[in-house]
Amino acid sequence: MKKFITLFLSAFMTLPLFAQYNRQVRGNLVIPDLKGYVTLKCDFHIHTVFSDGVVWPTVRIDEVYKEGLDAISLTEHLEVRPYVYEKSVSHNRSYEIAKPAADAKEIILIRASEITRDMPPGHCNALFLTNSDELAKPDWRDAFRAAKAQNAFIFWNHPGWWAQQPYTTEWWPEHTELMEQGMLHGIEVAQYNTYYPEAHRWCLEKKLTMIGTSDAHESVRDEIDLYNWKHRTMTFVFAKERTAESIREALNERRTAVYADEHVIGEEKYLKELFENALEWELEKIDNVVYITFKNKSDLTFRLRKGEHDPRLIYFRYSNLSPYIIEPQGVHTISVRFLDGVTSGDVNFIIENFLVEPNTGMRYVIKI
Amino acid sequence: MKKFITLFLSAFMTLPLFAQYNRQVRGNLVIPDLKGYVTLKCDFHIHTVFSDGVVWPTVRIDEVYKEGLDAISLTEHLEVRPYVYEKSVSHNRSYEIAKPAADAKEIILIRASEITRDMPPGHCNALFLTNSDELAKPDWRDAFRAAKAQNAFIFWNHPGWWAQQPYTTEWWPEHTELMEQGMLHGIEVAQYNTYYPEAHRWCLEKKLTMIGTSDAHESVRDEIDLYNWKHRTMTFVFAKERTAESIREALNERRTAVYADEHVIGEEKYLKELFENALEWELEKIDNVVYITFKNKSDLTFRLRKGEHDPRLIYFRYSNLSPYIIEPQGVHTISVRFLDGVTSGDVNFIIENFLVEPNTGMRYVIKI
Amino acid sequence: MKKFITLFLSAFMTLPLFAQYNRQVRGNLVIPDLKGYVTLKCDFHIHTVFSDGVVWPTVRIDEVYKEGLDAISLTEHLEVRPYVYEKSVSHNRSYEIAKPAADAKEIILIRASEITRDMPPGHCNALFLTNSDELAKPDWRDAFRAAKAQNAFIFWNHPGWWAQQPYTTEWWPEHTELMEQGMLHGIEVAQYNTYYPEAHRWCLEKKLTMIGTSDAHESVRDEIDLYNWKHRTMTFVFAKERTAESIREALNERRTAVYADEHVIGEEKYLKELFENALEWELEKIDNVVYITFKNKSDLTFRLRKGEHDPRLIYFRYSNLSPYIIEPQGVHTISVRFLDGVTSGDVNFIIENFLVEPNTGMRYVIKI
Amino acid sequence: MKKFITLFLSAFMTLPLFAQYNRQVRGNLVIPDLKGYVTLKCDFHIHTVFSDGVVWPTVRIDEVYKEGLDAISLTEHLEVRPYVYEKSVSHNRSYEIAKPAADAKEIILIRASEITRDMPPGHCNALFLTNSDELAKPDWRDAFRAAKAQNAFIFWNHPGWWAQQPYTTEWWPEHTELMEQGMLHGIEVAQYNTYYPEAHRWCLEKKLTMIGTSDAHESVRDEIDLYNWKHRTMTFVFAKERTAESIREALNERRTAVYADEHVIGEEKYLKELFENALEWELEKIDNVVYITFKNKSDLTFRLRKGEHDPRLIYFRYSNLSPYIIEPQGVHTISVRFLDGVTSGDVNFIIENFLVEPNTGMRYVIKI
Repeated sequence: MKKFITLFLSAFMTLPLFAQYNRQVRGNLVIPDLKGYVTLKCDFHIHTVFSDGVVWPTVRIDEVYKEGLDAISLTEHLEVRPYVYEKSVSHNRSYEIAKPAADAKEIILIRASEITRDMPPGHCNALFLTNSDELAKPDWRDAFRAAKAQNAFIFWNHPGWWAQQPYTTEWWPEHTELMEQGMLHGIEVAQYNTYYPEAHRWCLEKKLTMIGTSDAHESVRDEIDLYNWKHRTMTFVFAKERTAESIREALNERRTAVYADEHVIGEEKYLKELFENALEWELEKIDNVVYITFKNKSDLTFRLRKGEHDPRLIYFRYSNLSPYIIEPQGVHTISVRFLDGVTSGDVNFIIENFLVEPNTGMRYVIKI
Repeated sequence: MKKFITLFLSAFMTLPLFAQYNRQVRGNLVIPDLKGYVTLKCDFHIHTVFSDGVVWPTVRIDEVYKEGLDAISLTEHLEVRPYVYEKSVSHNRSYEIAKPAADAKEIILIRASEITRDMPPGHCNALFLTNSDELAKPDWRDAFRAAKAQNAFIFWNHPGWWAQQPYTTEWWPEHTELMEQGMLHGIEVAQYNTYYPEAHRWCLEKKLTMIGTSDAHESVRDEIDLYNWKHRTMTFVFAKERTAESIREALNERRTAVYADEHVIGEEKYLKELFENALEWELEKIDNVVYITFKNKSDLTFRLRKGEHDPRLIYFRYSNLSPYIIEPQGVHTISVRFLDGVTSGDVNFIIENFLVEPNTGMRYVIKI
Repeated sequence: MKKFITLFLSAFMTLPLFAQYNRQVRGNLVIPDLKGYVTLKCDFHIHTVFSDGVVWPTVRIDEVYKEGLDAISLTEHLEVRPYVYEKSVSHNRSYEIAKPAADAKEIILIRASEITRDMPPGHCNALFLTNSDELAKPDWRDAFRAAKAQNAFIFWNHPGWWAQQPYTTEWWPEHTELMEQGMLHGIEVAQYNTYYPEAHRWCLEKKLTMIGTSDAHESVRDEIDLYNWKHRTMTFVFAKERTAESIREALNERRTAVYADEHVIGEEKYLKELFENALEWELEKIDNVVYITFKNKSDLTFRLRKGEHDPRLIYFRYSNLSPYIIEPQGVHTISVRFLDGVTSGDVNFIIENFLVEPNTGMRYVIKI
Repeated sequence: MKKFITLFLSAFMTLPLFAQYNRQVRGNLVIPDLKGYVTLKCDFHIHTVFSDGVVWPTVRIDEVYKEGLDAISLTEHLEVRPYVYEKSVSHNRSYEIAKPAADAKEIILIRASEITRDMPPGHCNALFLTNSDELAKPDWRDAFRAAKAQNAFIFWNHPGWWAQQPYTTEWWPEHTELMEQGMLHGIEVAQYNTYYPEAHRWCLEKKLTMIGTSDAHESVRDEIDLYNWKHRTMTFVFAKERTAESIREALNERRTAVYADEHVIGEEKYLKELFENALEWELEKIDNVVYITFKNKSDLTFRLRKGEHDPRLIYFRYSNLSPYIIEPQGVHTISVRFLDGVTSGDVNFIIENFLVEPNTGMRYVIKI
């Protein structure tokens, strides 16, 4: 049969495909930069038909191009490849197929693999590899050593995955061992639809890099629609430049935040700057009322709740049944009234979807 | 490497996959049945990574399950398989992978292949095959004969495709030849985003079956979103039962209609019954005004324009800038006023999205 | 000029108005009934141009007809009528204008007035009046006595309104006095966009009826759009029949709940029955996984959070970043997995938008 | 009772009203300017409770402020005032109530009245009045003369209104008479939901000004929602400045277009410039394909159909089932392919919602 294929193929190839005229438009997910850094939108945990995902590698490039991401890794399981029908296929194949598409669309594609083991140490992704095939070793320690030999950045995936840690989310001696040997640098604080508050705490305490990923197996659109999300779970990387090397430097320096549903998770210093760079606000005082007009220049959402508030102030335009929500690119005015004789005060908010500690929103004060 | 895979696989297989707990819900696309027939929603032209589509075969089952379709075919090109990396793979593989998933979700999967040739005769799909490999032959006439030997139902795909018929959409002697030899039974009147009025006319004149298909290569959701459609292009098959054999019988008897964007294309006798079974209407007369309240029990949309109308009647609740639109499951009231002394009249509509002849809407009269 | 008006009017009145042909459709807000009671959707606090609202009284009937409410009161301020340009106009005028429209649309219109005073006692609405003019008295106690003389049901409006109670929401001796004299029977627990948790507590403790109202001054659509709400704040009255007298009986017996944004506020016995009558659920067990499929037959939303949960169970299809939301008329499946060897357990939820005590969601357990 | 009102009012007025803290935001309806002219969005036909509308005059200012209009008239019927309960109320009252609100929100309020008579001459609006009361005269000719004496701009309302012209839309000798005497300057080409193609033709032939109005009686939001419109019917006035005098000058010079649903109706010279100023497009040629990327900088919608097209070109990204729609602020790419050997051609469109003659879309050619 093979010859027929060859025969017909030449004839057919004079015919353009439909798809090539459906020119895509690069998506624009507007997240503010930080002082000195550009904010790169990254997803370092993705599968294709070269492990147990259900789409061809180029689809992953098309998806992130349309979603406005900057960098991804295809992290095929080294050990689990149910859709690979020719077992001699290299673990580098997925990267190699996707790379020309990534280059054409200016997506930074970082070669990676997923080391897929029982707990401990569970599943871990190794980024910045040079040859994935070398990690395919029976002993998990050998796999990690091979990754380290390629100078990989390694993070622990979905640490509280029920299938591996059903009762509690625990840190094992093996993770200490990996960390001490320079073979564990970060943890998934959020993966797909799940937030791991324990991982959030470990990152703060052990100085590990916070990572957020889609862990996409199906079409990303299908996956995020299940939860009515607007975007995949991803990592914001605050990088000096839009290059793979800058991403590596930023990951090493833990300059990241995690973006999952409407939540941004990270260190307060980064989240505060994101907040301030995303929102502009103006104050206008008319009689006893100060109008605070927020203009959201970003695609982030902000859920503001009144904090323990200054008793000399009264909030208007504020339903106390729900948080005050500033939608992406939205403009909103909050009115605050001074009681008689009062001329200044603190408007105290909790940005309840900006998590600066496990399950804890960020406080923010506007002085008026 | 293969042994490592085997080794690890057994360990891993004790771990459930994420995906298997995302139980899907069967979609419900409400299209009325006709008297004596159940209306099956079918798509007979779909690709996967086993030709030039970009998703795994099971994805096609998941998609149609969620969209509420009843039956599909995976019509891999026999001649064009850019994503197949082991050339000895059988042309039946796609079907074999999808079949268990189809059975589990009660989707009727009809084995098929696409014979992919220059014009004439262009591309054609052969349905109800028993072995696709037998159609892989250098001479196209041999391929059609092999399909006929398996008692296939064969239709001509996208007859006016610009890459094959750029200037005009023409019927070739080869199509007459195929028809006369019982090797051409239908034509795509609509494929993906394109309507072929010439094919519409040919089906009416030559008694061929009208077919509508998605010709999906990418995720169907991505494809229909390009045009803000709500559903893929498909064929309504008016079948005696929800079985493959009944579909075959209905296709042979030309009991189909094509559903593309908001348009339904087919013979007037079927479209009229669809219209009447989808809509209920009640008349209420108060003084000189008759209120016609339409209740749309279906997911079809109806775009009504005033026909050449009875001059004794005046329509209210009707903007003459746009057609009167009855949305899926919507309830709408049109008010018609009798001029003084008038007690009955004809309310003449053109259902402009129900095409009973090429580019021609269906007339409908309500007597009040 | 008056004669000209009279003259032209007769000529004009032979011409139908546009508006009368825009026949409206009664809205259908689906809230389940309770055993032995029909759930009536009521708004007992509304203004028109006959006090400081900006629309004609009939607009209020049109609005509630389209929104699917059953009963309303027009509660014009007795003391504040900035838009009344002829001061001799009776306080009953608003009711009289609206009554024929209410009758035509089968809206129960309950004659009422708002007694509008400084705190204490603040603003109160008196329902079931027979003549509003008799309440227009300088001394507020006389106004309440006049209302009582007409056998009115009286409730305290927006008890924590900042303009009257800026620092805290307090109960005054005057309210005790009114209660003891049978002149205070309920409180607004939610009004427009504000929830008063103190009032919620008082109603539970002092056996007062919980009321929710729009306090509409502008077009209701404009008011609720400010907060992206789907409906006005209202009172569910669990009445024996759909009559004014049954409403009175139910208000007296405190058979109400308050509906504000997505929140339902009330006594647990009523909210639990609402929950159970609004949702159907089915359990299906496949291997170790139980699928709980919720079918919401109502227009209520349910926000479920995992309660302190049974450690032998694992939830799927559940993002722990946000509550699990069952939309109006929605169907959702939650998957729960038994760990090995476990065969039953408790699925513990908190329905966080069903407030059974101040700011406290309702617990609900599904045994599987 | 009056004294009680006075008594309580003083006490109450120390309390702020709710409404005054709901600060509104001026809407921004983006319609491009023309060379030398600013495009003002105007509605010269509106009612309030001072004739047969159902809202207070200030509501009309709030509405247009939120919708982004520049100028309006309140055109109370001189002869029909069913909601006026004190018949001595001046016909100027509506204007006087609305004027301070208009000034505060920088809405240009043009004093006007509607002369409301049987056909002929039917209903006409007189703008730029100085005293509406002087138009309240039994003989319609006297009313028009009084308007002319105040130097009014006068236009004929809804010329084909079924209640006055049920069978056909005719021009009467009385309209010729009015025109010749300088008492008829424009016609409503679209009013509320109705387009009058006859009026469109008369304006072109008789050099009358094209006017579009809401003729709002109810809340504008309620009225336009009946037809799922995004905006009220209005007049674009191409004025030298944003002043009442400039509006008058532009109306006299017939520099207007009518905006109704998605349609823009007017002279081709204005519509062409609107089209070109609203859309930017870029051409990019890759191999044989030219990508035309339209960027719509306006809130207008464009419905493009292929015109009789150049046979050497093939359109992609174009479903031939529906027009190609460029949404407000949308970006879209149309791909056009040259057949082999072709290097240029005409892309012919009909902008089917830009009506330059009765029921006739505007042609537009892009040369590539």
